[in-house]
Amino acid sequence: MMNVPLRVTAMMEHAERFFPKKTVVSRTASGIRTFTYREIANRTRRLSSALKKLGVQKGDKVGTLAWNHHRHLEAYFGIPGAEAVLHTINIRLSPAHIAYIINHAEDKVLLIDQDILPLIEAIRDEISGVHSFILMTDEPELPDSPLKPLYHYEALLDEGDPNFAFNPDIDENEPAGMCYTSATTGNPKGVVYSHRGIVLHSMALGHVDGGSVSESDICMPVVPMFHVNAWGLPFAAVWFGTTQVLPGPQFTPKLLADLIEQENVTITAGVPTIWLGLLKELDEGKYDTSSLRYVLCGGSAAPKGLIQAFESRHNIPFAHAYGMTETSPLVVFSRIKSYQQDLSDEEKLNIRAKQGYLVPGVEMKVQGANGEVKWDGNEMGELLLRGNWIADEYYGEEQSASFTDGWLHTGDVVTVDGEGTIKIVDRTKDLIKSGGEWISSVDLENALIAHEDIFEACVVAVPDPEWQERPIACVVLKEEARGKVTKEDIKEYLKPQFAKWWIPDDVLFMDEIPKTSVGKFLKRALRDQVRDHYASEGTVETK
Amino acid sequence: MMNVPLRVTAMMEHAERFFPKKTVVSRTASGIRTFTYREIANRTRRLSSALKKLGVQKGDKVGTLAWNHHRHLEAYFGIPGAEAVLHTINIRLSPAHIAYIINHAEDKVLLIDQDILPLIEAIRDEISGVHSFILMTDEPELPDSPLKPLYHYEALLDEGDPNFAFNPDIDENEPAGMCYTSATTGNPKGVVYSHRGIVLHSMALGHVDGGSVSESDICMPVVPMFHVNAWGLPFAAVWFGTTQVLPGPQFTPKLLADLIEQENVTITAGVPTIWLGLLKELDEGKYDTSSLRYVLCGGSAAPKGLIQAFESRHNIPFAHAYGMTETSPLVVFSRIKSYQQDLSDEEKLNIRAKQGYLVPGVEMKVQGANGEVKWDGNEMGELLLRGNWIADEYYGEEQSASFTDGWLHTGDVVTVDGEGTIKIVDRTKDLIKSGGEWISSVDLENALIAHEDIFEACVVAVPDPEWQERPIACVVLKEEARGKVTKEDIKEYLKPQFAKWWIPDDVLFMDEIPKTSVGKFLKRALRDQVRDHYASEGTVETK
Repeated sequence: MMNVPLRVTAMMEHAERFFPKKTVVSRTASGIRTFTYREIANRTRRLSSALKKLGVQKGDKVGTLAWNHHRHLEAYFGIPGAEAVLHTINIRLSPAHIAYIINHAEDKVLLIDQDILPLIEAIRDEISGVHSFILMTDEPELPDSPLKPLYHYEALLDEGDPNFAFNPDIDENEPAGMCYTSATTGNPKGVVYSHRGIVLHSMALGHVDGGSVSESDICMPVVPMFHVNAWGLPFAAVWFGTTQVLPGPQFTPKLLADLIEQENVTITAGVPTIWLGLLKELDEGKYDTSSLRYVLCGGSAAPKGLIQAFESRHNIPFAHAYGMTETSPLVVFSRIKSYQQDLSDEEKLNIRAKQGYLVPGVEMKVQGANGEVKWDGNEMGELLLRGNWIADEYYGEEQSASFTDGWLHTGDVVTVDGEGTIKIVDRTKDLIKSGGEWISSVDLENALIAHEDIFEACVVAVPDPEWQERPIACVVLKEEARGKVTKEDIKEYLKPQFAKWWIPDDVLFMDEIPKTSVGKFLKRALRDQVRDHYASEGTVETK
Repeated sequence: MMNVPLRVTAMMEHAERFFPKKTVVSRTASGIRTFTYREIANRTRRLSSALKKLGVQKGDKVGTLAWNHHRHLEAYFGIPGAEAVLHTINIRLSPAHIAYIINHAEDKVLLIDQDILPLIEAIRDEISGVHSFILMTDEPELPDSPLKPLYHYEALLDEGDPNFAFNPDIDENEPAGMCYTSATTGNPKGVVYSHRGIVLHSMALGHVDGGSVSESDICMPVVPMFHVNAWGLPFAAVWFGTTQVLPGPQFTPKLLADLIEQENVTITAGVPTIWLGLLKELDEGKYDTSSLRYVLCGGSAAPKGLIQAFESRHNIPFAHAYGMTETSPLVVFSRIKSYQQDLSDEEKLNIRAKQGYLVPGVEMKVQGANGEVKWDGNEMGELLLRGNWIADEYYGEEQSASFTDGWLHTGDVVTVDGEGTIKIVDRTKDLIKSGGEWISSVDLENALIAHEDIFEACVVAVPDPEWQERPIACVVLKEEARGKVTKEDIKEYLKPQFAKWWIPDDVLFMDEIPKTSVGKFLKRALRDQVRDHYASEGTVETK
């Protein structure tokens, strides 16, 4: 057999040749425009040649600070097209973290959205390794800026070569992209994506039983393109000739609902927080969302109630998947097997609320205290993963406990049932150890979130002299329930569902739960807050 | 990113872990039995260990002479599981060709179905390199046979190790399989399939826009497992947990129709000859075929009438694909793009009767007399292919004109339209050159086959002193039309459809058209026959 390198640019060539008329609907600061893949491919080739002219060398990191739009899509292919590395930067991180990331990755060039410009201007003295700044703007003229040299993206493209040929003979293990994890503690850590990894991950997204992305789909990634490559969807969508809808900057639930209706979106993807917002909008407004084949939910576990609300109230199929920055991210997809179709709706919901089973192409094992755990839905252990779209190191780190013996240690504690269905029980570091037994904070949170008066809930451990640790529930009540629901009500509600020693010692009502830049609970911060609270016997934003 | 070898055995491990309850329905000489993937995986591990015990070394070729059944499926994984090479041998070839193939591949072990045993016994003196014969039989005892040593497949499995561990650290470019082309001329040529090639090809079979094979499917490959790995379907089906129905030896159209109905088959695959036979059966009998999602047709071009008959008369979606032994085989799949859905049924049929466009993961170019042809649906050139499941050599041949500059030269003359849709116009060697222009024998054949009185038709060239070559139509009339339809009727029928100089100079009525062992027209033999006919002015089986 031939051994032809798997490469990101071949996916754009495929779209250019076989789907030149298919389109990308792009929302930017100035409105919504539509581009064909012929145009996108042409602009991508121009971008690659322009980057080369700016002195970008093979292996250089080129950073992007941008929302989901056509220019960012061009960067997804145009930067690897110049044999450089697409480094997507999370614009929601603190300026200090952004500066750290740019320096740590040694970015040579930055592509920046106009509304993000002030953020970079503010840290310009700290990122002296960057030799060129490119502004991705709809405006014809560049603004005054202390960033030097600052180039106009469209002007660069105008001077670029529309016939620039991508190198077909690269090494498929070369880096094509990188992304830093949104750290809940310490500095962000860089994950590098190879051409091979991105292409194989894209294949998994096209599988019927995986993402099932196809030519006939209209895919709207709401998950940011600066976050694990928008779960790889822009890559896969180009390859398969899928129409894309890129919702641009500062979108609202209303905007998303409008786009779904107007563009006949069939697949959309995002974190639970996004879907909670959209759900509220759909409940209140009148939208035709019948085009949706499914809503993909990942990033953190989807509460059962959320799945149910989308399906029963709006007839929108809700798909649950699991992954992380280190896994490209898709590794586990929740689906009902053919012989499970006759189960009751509730049984099926219980299966689907779990994370799911492995997509073809990755391998797993679950490591408990005494080796691999039984697949009995009960024994807990840490999920270990292996595969071509799984990271084997953090960029620039000599060693990390996350990567040993050829496996990624995910830090997620799971059970696996006889069907191979994975259920995340906790993070290794969030598991509560009480009296020699383990309490799953996630199980308690899922039960809490199913309470009709609770908007958000998070369970953390506090030290206990007798039991080592005890759980405390932090609860955000819905507006209308505040002042009416008591701590005792919550505890009584939990009692029939759990062993007595699992019931939290206390319930703290809060206005909100601290979150990371991508909407995950910041458990470490919350834990500190709660521990301080008990230490000082004061109150912490409780009501 | 990790670089984990793509390997065939990982696909069986995936089925074993995530689809242990899913089944393989296997028809053998003694009837139909059902096995779970847990059982198949267990037996596969036993087979690998048994082969090792027989002295099979890494890289050894192990030949199979078998129909489509569970034991052959176990060999598909168990032979690569022993780090040997699965060499599927076409049992329909002549004994001389089979002996040639076994010796050329240097097969060390042969796995043989009981009804094929006499064939191998007859050539035993010619294949002295084979050190062990294994009989795949339902009978408890071995028959008397001059083959020595002859092992009983089930007895070997009984002694095999059900916990045999497949090596996870192979080189993905190592050979896992091989298959010889059914040559229309000269000796058969060997194509070697790597682990990498088979895994990537399987991925393409799982794509929504490719084979769309999924866990919820029930897949019946009618195409023999000795012919290009049954188009790779058994590999993909195992990986995706798809139920398989393997129709066994000596099946009839009635048996296929019964299996479709009884087993609720959703996908079935075979050559046009198979579907012509099934069509007749469905027209005459009463079968419920509503479970079928699609019938996959390849091997040679599907006549429009066949597509139409399945869809309009039986409501069975008919999918057309293109490939060859050298391409694993799937490279081109015929589908209607989303924006073509509003075309008339006839326009869509015209698109679908073409071969289709490239599946993601392969590259093409079309080489005409003056470089790459225009994609205008008109300019003709030879189709060249490149990709990870495309052969780069014939086994044991120093050089071949089929492989130059890193591309496979398919020998197929095609046009490509603006959508990238490929239409095979002819084989390079079957193209008719008349008066300096090209005449497509395939176009003429398609027109002939659409005639209501014609069962089969084949057009070949005869030398002509004035025009260089001229086309002759060889026609098999349907029973009821014989003696009624004349040569002139046929020519008159063609005249409105083609330029005057395309009309065949003569029409020869025949009882049948010579075919290869896999049902393709043996054009070379026919051409010789026709030329002899004119040389002697005699008659050749004409009516």
